[in-house]
Amino acid sequence: MPYYAEPIARLLEELERLPGIGPKSAQRVAFHILKGDDETAHRLADAIVEVKRQIHFCKVCFNFAADELCEYCADHERDRTGICVVEEPRDVVAIERTGEFRGLYHVLQGAISPIDGIGPEQLRVRELILRLEDGTVTEVVVATNPNVEGETTALYLARLIKPLGVRVTRIASGLPVGGDLEYADEVTLGRALEARREM
Amino acid sequence: MPYYAEPIARLLEELERLPGIGPKSAQRVAFHILKGDDETAHRLADAIVEVKRQIHFCKVCFNFAADELCEYCADHERDRTGICVVEEPRDVVAIERTGEFRGLYHVLQGAISPIDGIGPEQLRVRELILRLEDGTVTEVVVATNPNVEGETTALYLARLIKPLGVRVTRIASGLPVGGDLEYADEVTLGRALEARREM
Repeated sequence: MPYYAEPIARLLEELERLPGIGPKSAQRVAFHILKGDDETAHRLADAIVEVKRQIHFCKVCFNFAADELCEYCADHERDRTGICVVEEPRDVVAIERTGEFRGLYHVLQGAISPIDGIGPEQLRVRELILRLEDGTVTEVVVATNPNVEGETTALYLARLIKPLGVRVTRIASGLPVGGDLEYADEVTLGRALEARREM
Repeated sequence: MPYYAEPIARLLEELERLPGIGPKSAQRVAFHILKGDDETAHRLADAIVEVKRQIHFCKVCFNFAADELCEYCADHERDRTGICVVEEPRDVVAIERTGEFRGLYHVLQGAISPIDGIGPEQLRVRELILRLEDGTVTEVVVATNPNVEGETTALYLARLIKPLGVRVTRIASGLPVGGDLEYADEVTLGRALEARREM
């Protein structure tokens, strides 16, 4: 005999497809939904359906957007001379939270990874180059992840964009603020030394 | 400016209400839904709506049930002389997985906790006593949690049921199988000593 009635088993199956949700968390979430009121459950279901209906990719930067343009591309207060290139929409949120960047974004929707069959053609690279054509942009900040795929992508973009006369910069690697030298891996520590600055 | 478009913010808010889902996991799940296909998202939303529509409490044992009776109460192969009393429907699943119990269940829907204003009247205690009236049941196994509330509930039930001539047993406390004496807390170790058995 199965442990769960069919509708519960079906919900568990769908929940377990979500990232970071294993069988235990799925059970916890399902039983929470079952114990809660109908209205809360319907609000969740509705939010899922609506997010898929209303959110698309921004036609300029490929961030998530509720309209044709995302909130950054549509905002005329933003500095249009700088573009920060990231891998995923979540990285846009991470950069925004710092409050250190006032320009526009470009979401590649991934990083170069030959092993996964992802080359520049599978990413939004062509669209980025097109955005540089009218000469408004003077700096491209490459904020891909500091791992093999992200670094490869950064090098590729630098080689592609520099000849267009646009400055290409890379976010710094180094020790996390509040971190501890003792626990830093040697590659990060090496990068931190290499990028040392005059005090 | 908010970091997320309104439909995304709304989905994040609903996801964060779920147990064990913080802002980071909510973002991960939301972006997974956004990147996935429409069909998968609709299957999840639909599973949530359907589980609320189809699942109710079993009218005998108060476990979750797709019909009037839960699968255990409806199953005539189960031993009807024993009832295992648990706090929540998830505990039924935990007991079932052991394969050690072939009787019926009774879900109290909580445990006695004066601090939270939960007394026997807030639990399905009256309904349990009613099930014992016809004399079929000869043993009640109390499998409430081995914490203060669960133990209090167990003691209360024992005092209530024993006078009816029904045997009341309690699941054993002791060291977890595969556990390590060194890491056991002293209360658990004390219980394990107290409940030692002849070899």
